[in-house]
Amino acid sequence: MAYLVLIRHGESTWNLENRFTGWVDVPLTPTGIKQAKNVGIFLATTGWHFDLVYTSVLQRAVITLWQCLEQMGCVWVPVIHSWRLNERHYGALQGLNKAEVARQYGDHQVLLWRRSYDVSPPELNTEDWRLLRQDRRYVELKDPEIPKSESLKYTINRVMPLWEDSILPQLKAGKNILIVAHGNSIRGLMKHLDQLSEEAIIELNIPNASPIFYELTPEAVFRRCQAIESNYQSALGN
Amino acid sequence: MAYLVLIRHGESTWNLENRFTGWVDVPLTPTGIKQAKNVGIFLATTGWHFDLVYTSVLQRAVITLWQCLEQMGCVWVPVIHSWRLNERHYGALQGLNKAEVARQYGDHQVLLWRRSYDVSPPELNTEDWRLLRQDRRYVELKDPEIPKSESLKYTINRVMPLWEDSILPQLKAGKNILIVAHGNSIRGLMKHLDQLSEEAIIELNIPNASPIFYELTPEAVFRRCQAIESNYQSALGN
Repeated sequence: MAYLVLIRHGESTWNLENRFTGWVDVPLTPTGIKQAKNVGIFLATTGWHFDLVYTSVLQRAVITLWQCLEQMGCVWVPVIHSWRLNERHYGALQGLNKAEVARQYGDHQVLLWRRSYDVSPPELNTEDWRLLRQDRRYVELKDPEIPKSESLKYTINRVMPLWEDSILPQLKAGKNILIVAHGNSIRGLMKHLDQLSEEAIIELNIPNASPIFYELTPEAVFRRCQAIESNYQSALGN
Repeated sequence: MAYLVLIRHGESTWNLENRFTGWVDVPLTPTGIKQAKNVGIFLATTGWHFDLVYTSVLQRAVITLWQCLEQMGCVWVPVIHSWRLNERHYGALQGLNKAEVARQYGDHQVLLWRRSYDVSPPELNTEDWRLLRQDRRYVELKDPEIPKSESLKYTINRVMPLWEDSILPQLKAGKNILIVAHGNSIRGLMKHLDQLSEEAIIELNIPNASPIFYELTPEAVFRRCQAIESNYQSALGN
């Protein structure tokens, strides 16, 4: 038996400012750091340990992870960073305020970008600074792998190879695994784990820094442990 | 051409209390965290980047590393944790105040333990809590690999396989590497790099959080870059 815990990063500056973030590497707010510490304290006091951790290459996820590990007293646990766990790429909308975009394009269009399974926002053009072609963390990616914009479908498609090739084999080997990632990369994993429809996954909201627990049963089935999640909400006073 | 940077962790609580620390996992002091940030700011402002990082499994090294990476804006760089980079194991002296030990055993004996190449302090007995046999980070080690006490010679002997098998090949492949470790594991590396005698390495002092720079030349020779080190001391106002 092995456990899988999924955590979306704590509140970021652009969550707070209501901006489309995507692959832009914004920091956590002080609230975000506090949320991350709280998750770590909960995981520590309820006796969790992890053999291996996965996170994205974006600081809001990495710092959330570090705060957790520090509270758990296991800063030495191996960590694998992968761009495949990055947030959905929001294309030319990245950096823009969501309310402003709604005024400019209309609520219906914004809803389509945010709540469709396979509609991508407008692409970055090839000269845009947000394209990150010069960013060291992406130098080993081939050009088609660096998105100019992504639908939820595209995001899920690039998350799944990491799941199949690396995470799932480790879980099957009995390792307890923590993944600290982003709303849409976590949606991708949960769509697969809970066999959700395209409609259902779009409706699923992943709050900041609220751990989601699965156990891999001896029958090789992933079973969500919502009782543990409720304990966390109770511990927070929610 | 590739670069290697070695950093001893920032000040720990037991550095401050003048205790033998070894493998006991004590935290940094606020000064230690400040020192680590300063190194990171220097590395960032002077344009350093690393492709790969090695550290020990002790929090004073890991947290020093995290502070550096955060200041450098590259929290996503891959990190390899290895017990082989841990501090020298100080056996039954771990936790004891250095002045008290000197009063109990005499200055000469303490000097022998601290400044001999191949004399180990008294061993932990097999029931001692400090033996760490139950510690998750060491469960995969075979019994003879977990020290009960170490001379500097033993420490160097268990550091070198990591150097030969993992670090050196990566440097030869052109990767810039950062190692954040401990006084005696760094001594081991420097003995090898600078081809120092046993007497010379014992005399070599490694201060907290002062980066040591080497370049691997096209002639496959490691050359220490003391000019860069002086720049750091100047930046600190030393």
